[in-house]
This record gives sequence, structure tokens and C-alpha cells, in this order.
Amino acid sequence: MERARRNAQALYRQIAESIAAQIRAGDLQIGDRLPSERQLADELGVSRVTVRQALSLLEEQGLIERLPGIGSFVSKPKIEQPVDVLIGFSHNLLRRGIRPGARLLKLEIQRASRPVAEALQLGVGEPVYFIHRLRLANNLPVALEFSFFPARLCPKLESHDLIHRSIYTILMEEYGIHLQGADQVLEPTTARPYEARWLEIPEGSPLMLIRRISYDQAKQPVEYAKDLYRGDCFRFIVRSYSFEW
Amino acid sequence: MERARRNAQALYRQIAESIAAQIRAGDLQIGDRLPSERQLADELGVSRVTVRQALSLLEEQGLIERLPGIGSFVSKPKIEQPVDVLIGFSHNLLRRGIRPGARLLKLEIQRASRPVAEALQLGVGEPVYFIHRLRLANNLPVALEFSFFPARLCPKLESHDLIHRSIYTILMEEYGIHLQGADQVLEPTTARPYEARWLEIPEGSPLMLIRRISYDQAKQPVEYAKDLYRGDCFRFIVRSYSFEW
Repeated sequence: MERARRNAQALYRQIAESIAAQIRAGDLQIGDRLPSERQLADELGVSRVTVRQALSLLEEQGLIERLPGIGSFVSKPKIEQPVDVLIGFSHNLLRRGIRPGARLLKLEIQRASRPVAEALQLGVGEPVYFIHRLRLANNLPVALEFSFFPARLCPKLESHDLIHRSIYTILMEEYGIHLQGADQVLEPTTARPYEARWLEIPEGSPLMLIRRISYDQAKQPVEYAKDLYRGDCFRFIVRSYSFEW
Repeated sequence: MERARRNAQALYRQIAESIAAQIRAGDLQIGDRLPSERQLADELGVSRVTVRQALSLLEEQGLIERLPGIGSFVSKPKIEQPVDVLIGFSHNLLRRGIRPGARLLKLEIQRASRPVAEALQLGVGEPVYFIHRLRLANNLPVALEFSFFPARLCPKLESHDLIHRSIYTILMEEYGIHLQGADQVLEPTTARPYEARWLEIPEGSPLMLIRRISYDQAKQPVEYAKDLYRGDCFRFIVRSYSFEW
């Protein structure tokens, strides 16, 4: 009995390993659907319980994603985005060998609403640049950004190339603004029709909402941003070097 | 024309402010559904565009949540959970005047699977404590935890009170393990049937998945945890004090 149980354990690991090997070899590609539990059980001559254990292990290892009632799919490796340091979208992607891109959806001067004014320590109604961009990774739409910058800090921001240059680079090189850090708030959310359309994902897909206030060398807020990242494309990394008691 | 536009702007702010005042006064309670856009427009004698602007502002301020096709609801204020420092669930809640609780769903010694072994720097098959708990905030189920601890670091862990005491406190007081920090990975996800049932939320609701490896004073991993937090109850705070270039 104990031995049978141990063999069953070994079996599900073998099955998981053989599927993992197919993924590594490229026989199964990102987004491919695995055969159903029943098909796998029949093909391999094992119980559905064993198949389910193998799929759980693969999911745990991040190799597949299981959507209940729909099936199991080979996962995309996610892009790691650090949040314990402030790093621009483009810069992070370039470091990882991924080609960043942007599509400018809106650029205008607005009068700061109360929440924007509070975030940027401005008076309500003071002029701010509003920049709304779709961000691409190797041409795939992966994030939507809604950013606000105090207009007096970066006059004529619209005259710079906001599609091919990082805004952080423009702030530094054109306006002498050196970012020093940020306060970020992360919340999980789901795609509504607007986000689903631009990000080319089904409504209800997981998104990470990040609100960020970035500061310059004088601890003056220079950016207030709301970014929505596709949950299937990104994971967010934080190293905590202290323990609060 | 310009004046009419400015009046319309003032109007939507007034409407938002009057709804905000009802929320502050408790006339509208957490979870209450606001009247529909059409009802509000009729009651207030304004256009639906103006109502929509007012609702957007309230949403931006975090006072309401709008679920397309369903309605607008008064938001719960979310619990802030820092992730740039390591802080226990109970400790964080107590600091904010919220009563933490736990329900022990499973406690057993397992043999470490490959991902658990890798996270904890153990050999595959070495014994680990597996602790699965439902976490409560003022009696509301708000998070599910799946935690693994190397069994040799905390023998007889099951003899301690894992419901009323924080595990971090037990590790420190009973085993002399002092946590020093953690590597955390945050991913947005959605509730599957299992999570939905325990957390008492609809399937598909936003959840934050946090994987964490916590280290002791010798940089030895002492905990591998997967926590799932209700997105409607928590927001996650990170202060980044450096900028990567």
C-alpha cells in the first residue's frame, strides 16, 4: 500500500517532467493547450488523479496555467519588474533583451483634478501634462499608462519624442530633473472593456494597477502615474531587507 | 460656451462632493449600491455625462468602485500592507486597529516538492511543515496562506498555538529564529472556485498572489509562502529610495 502510494508519487513526477521536457524542447509552445485531463489519463494509462497531480506540479513550477473549465496552457515566462527600486519601463525591458515600444494615445495639458493636485502637491486647477500611452514589449501590448507631470517643470514636453524616448530620460536630459525614488501602491484588478480592447485580452483578465508618485532630488513630486500591467506578462519583485516587529 | 463648460465642471465636482459627504456621514455605507447613472441624472436634473464624470472622480478618490453593467458601490477602505519591509499579517493588522484572526485549514509534515525544496534550499523530499490558513480581519475572511517551513528548524511546530499566535512570533520566541528580510514576488490573479469559497467572494474576483521566501539572520531561508489576498481588502505599499538607470 505504502509502496503503491510511493510509485504513484513517482509517476506524477515523471509525467510532469516529460511535459516539462516537451516545453523546454519547444514541442509545446507558449499558449499551446495541453490535452484534457481525461485525454492525458487515457493516453498515459494512468488515473485522472495522477494527471491532476502532474498538472498541479507544472503549475507550481510556473510552466503551465490552468483555467478551470477551459484547460491547461503553456505559460509565457513573465517579465520581472522590480518595484523596490524605481526603474523605467523601457530601461527594464532593454536590460532583459526585450524591445520596448509605445503608442501615444493622448497628450494634453489639463487642469489638475483634486487627486492629481494632491499627489503632485499642486493647487487644484494648476496645469499638468497628461500623457496616456500603450506600452509594447516586442510589439505585444502589455501595459497602459496614465501619467501626470506638473507643466511648469517640463514646459513644451510635447516637443520631445515621447514614443521612442523614455520620459525619465527626457526629464533628465532636457529638464535636469533627476528622479530619486517613488512611493508605489500595487493593487490587483481586472480588465474592463477599455483596457481589454487596448491590451488585446479578455475582459476580466488579471491586471496589476500601480499608482506611483515619483520624486526628484529635492523630494519634490514630479510624476503621478497609474499604470495597468497585464498579469499574464509581468511579475513584480520586491526585496525587503528589514523586518518590522 | 467656455463658461457653460466651466459650470458643468463645477457641477460634477459638486455632485461628487455631495455623494462623498453622504459616505463620510455614514448615510451611504460600505458596499451600498449607488443609484444608477440614469436615476442620478433624473434626480439631480443633470446629464448622464455629468453624472459619469462625478462617478469617475469618486472612483479616482477610492470612495466608490464601479462594476460595468452592474453598478457603483461604496468602497471599503483597503488595508495597507507594506511589502518593502517584511511584516507579519497579524502585526500589520494590529497596528491599524484591526483584529487579526486565523483558521487552520491544514497542518502536516510533507516531503518537499522540487519548487519548495528549491525555495528553502533543501533536498527534494526533505521534511517540511505545510501550514494552510485562512486569515481573518475583524472576522472577515481576507487571505489564504500556504506556508512551508523546514521541519528541522522548528520541530514540533504543531504543538504551538498557530491560531492565536503569529508564526513569526513562534519562530522567534520558541526557536530563536530571527527574520531579517524576504524576497517577494507579486502577481495579480483571480479567484478560482476554491479561493472564492473560502474568501466568500465571487469567482473571478481580483486577488494578489504573493510568493515569499523569508530569511533569518544567517540569510538562511526559513519560510516559503504563497499568500492570496483579497484585492477588495488590501493594497500593497512599496517605497523605492533609489532609481535605476
